[in-house]
Amino acid sequence: MQQAPAVVGMRLEDVDTPALVVDLDAFESNLRRLNESVAGRVRVRAHAKTHKCPEIALRQIAAGAVGVCCQKVGEAEAMVEGGVRDVLVTNEIIGARKLERLATLARRARIGVCVDQAANVRELEAAAAKAGATLEVYLELEVGMRRCGVAPGAPAVALARTIAASPHLRFAGMHAYHGRAQHIRSHEERRAVIANAAAAVRTTRAMLDEAGVACPIVTGAGSGTFMFEVELGAWDEIQPGSYVFMDWDYARNEWAPPLPRFDHSLFVLATVQSRPDDRIAIVDAGLKASSVDSGMPGVWERPGLAYTHASDEHGWLEAGPGSKVPALGEKVLLVPGHCDPTVNLYDWYVCVRGGAVEALWPITARGALA
Amino acid sequence: MQQAPAVVGMRLEDVDTPALVVDLDAFESNLRRLNESVAGRVRVRAHAKTHKCPEIALRQIAAGAVGVCCQKVGEAEAMVEGGVRDVLVTNEIIGARKLERLATLARRARIGVCVDQAANVRELEAAAAKAGATLEVYLELEVGMRRCGVAPGAPAVALARTIAASPHLRFAGMHAYHGRAQHIRSHEERRAVIANAAAAVRTTRAMLDEAGVACPIVTGAGSGTFMFEVELGAWDEIQPGSYVFMDWDYARNEWAPPLPRFDHSLFVLATVQSRPDDRIAIVDAGLKASSVDSGMPGVWERPGLAYTHASDEHGWLEAGPGSKVPALGEKVLLVPGHCDPTVNLYDWYVCVRGGAVEALWPITARGALA
Repeated sequence: MQQAPAVVGMRLEDVDTPALVVDLDAFESNLRRLNESVAGRVRVRAHAKTHKCPEIALRQIAAGAVGVCCQKVGEAEAMVEGGVRDVLVTNEIIGARKLERLATLARRARIGVCVDQAANVRELEAAAAKAGATLEVYLELEVGMRRCGVAPGAPAVALARTIAASPHLRFAGMHAYHGRAQHIRSHEERRAVIANAAAAVRTTRAMLDEAGVACPIVTGAGSGTFMFEVELGAWDEIQPGSYVFMDWDYARNEWAPPLPRFDHSLFVLATVQSRPDDRIAIVDAGLKASSVDSGMPGVWERPGLAYTHASDEHGWLEAGPGSKVPALGEKVLLVPGHCDPTVNLYDWYVCVRGGAVEALWPITARGALA
Repeated sequence: MQQAPAVVGMRLEDVDTPALVVDLDAFESNLRRLNESVAGRVRVRAHAKTHKCPEIALRQIAAGAVGVCCQKVGEAEAMVEGGVRDVLVTNEIIGARKLERLATLARRARIGVCVDQAANVRELEAAAAKAGATLEVYLELEVGMRRCGVAPGAPAVALARTIAASPHLRFAGMHAYHGRAQHIRSHEERRAVIANAAAAVRTTRAMLDEAGVACPIVTGAGSGTFMFEVELGAWDEIQPGSYVFMDWDYARNEWAPPLPRFDHSLFVLATVQSRPDDRIAIVDAGLKASSVDSGMPGVWERPGLAYTHASDEHGWLEAGPGSKVPALGEKVLLVPGHCDPTVNLYDWYVCVRGGAVEALWPITARGALA
């Protein structure tokens, strides 16, 4: 773990760079806005893959979430270690070592996991039995993403029966998430994709009812679509993650009601380290400081200035007509192109309010790959 | 720091995934091949930004390197902490806190740094004086990359004089590196770009001689071009980094003598976690496990199988005609698209020889952003 680039009480402009900065006012307003938007209609189970930080998870729970989601066993371990008591791993867990860790964790907290194959159900049952624990098991329903998941209808019902028949597993319901839908630019197209997913969910739930298999919860949805899931009425629980931070890529989505507006609350603070000419400033934050998988970062409150190119440790800021590039040593805030993999590059959130550092939160699940 | 995904003695197929695997035979052969290729012609100062690991730096030095390069003060600290006594930061260091750390480090090891502005020379002098240390200072020469660097000729000479006149700085020479050239696909185009850089180096060195400013070392060059620098005769020292591992993007370069062949020695071990249909396998290594900034990873020794798409925690393996996708639970080796940012996602190298884990090396400069 690297040393934190700041101390509490320091002014933002004195923070060492690159640093991952959270604007606490914007962050807290995002927490409130999500919960207000869906209150009384669905449960919120916030996705911790975005932030990898129990400090944030506990604040999401305080704001109304029932618990968190994770993608990796190591993330779930970090959350339980940090005081979270209800974690759903929205992923298939394969391999003896991981299954053992997952089942052991279920002795300390309520742990859910997804499956899409009967063979994996048997492995989960064996691991839970060995650990003397009970796992909450969700079938993952394939709703159009062509990633993981069992086909809707009869295959899903067969899998649910296998889960329900396993003494150390509890059939907890269905995980139905369409990841690709989150970044479809058109509002209407996004809604249409989720409507298709809802049809698959409804058909399968009806068949489960008919088969006498109780389906307690349908869970799914991300920050780019969750109000469609809520309005379509086929989900009991939503799993948004990025809403806490909002990244530059989400800002490219067409965004309209019923989706509430969220604010950018996550930034990379960078310093100008070279000025090759009067149109270009080189900053000390490249692709090891802000992930470029979903495009370059945005430049915050510097009209006419664009981050046009990244190398490993450097970024190019270029000035458009009529705008000026910052001076050598000047600091700028960047809005990451994609928040999740950017967070995964840092050990600390530098939490700022009113221009001063209020807290340092360790990103304890950073690098929790397995 | 995350737990290591393996223990020494374990079989490769039992290593937990995703894991960053080094094939020690290929790695050691790369070390030898580099040093044999340039022996007696230039010094090698291997770039540690690639591997971020003192265990590897010490092996590079044992194989003949005079020391290492870093891009960040935090990387240099990790190298000195790990026993490396000669480190050149091939970058401009801006900001009071970093300058203080750099100067303090120079009390414990030989520390070089680059500059491209006189104002920064004055800051370095003040920091070195305060720490009671001497810094080796190189002017960074702009040789076509339009990133950092002072213009060749008179501006470079003026900067060299400023450095040489600073009592706590030693003018150590010129850093002349063309990063973009490394990935130009055509062998001849790469050679031509480096020939241009060599002309800028020669002109400036002649002007320094004329001005009576001794230029002890010209340093630069990367894994994709270094033999051109050697043959052009304008460099005294080369800085290759990726040669230890070789990534999938380098494998796309046209590669011919005088450049020696290097082997892929770095892999991401991944497990099939879902099989949506008989043409697709989903693995547990997405873009948080293998950086996609330079394209998708390659699939190792699985003809007909391609890694076509990554989401944060998942990868899509697709089978071409006549080939089969691996089964659920099967493990595959991926060759990262770009080694440097991939290494930066992990805390451990799992070092393998003859199919068994021989060592675990901590990546102590992982996340050393500042």
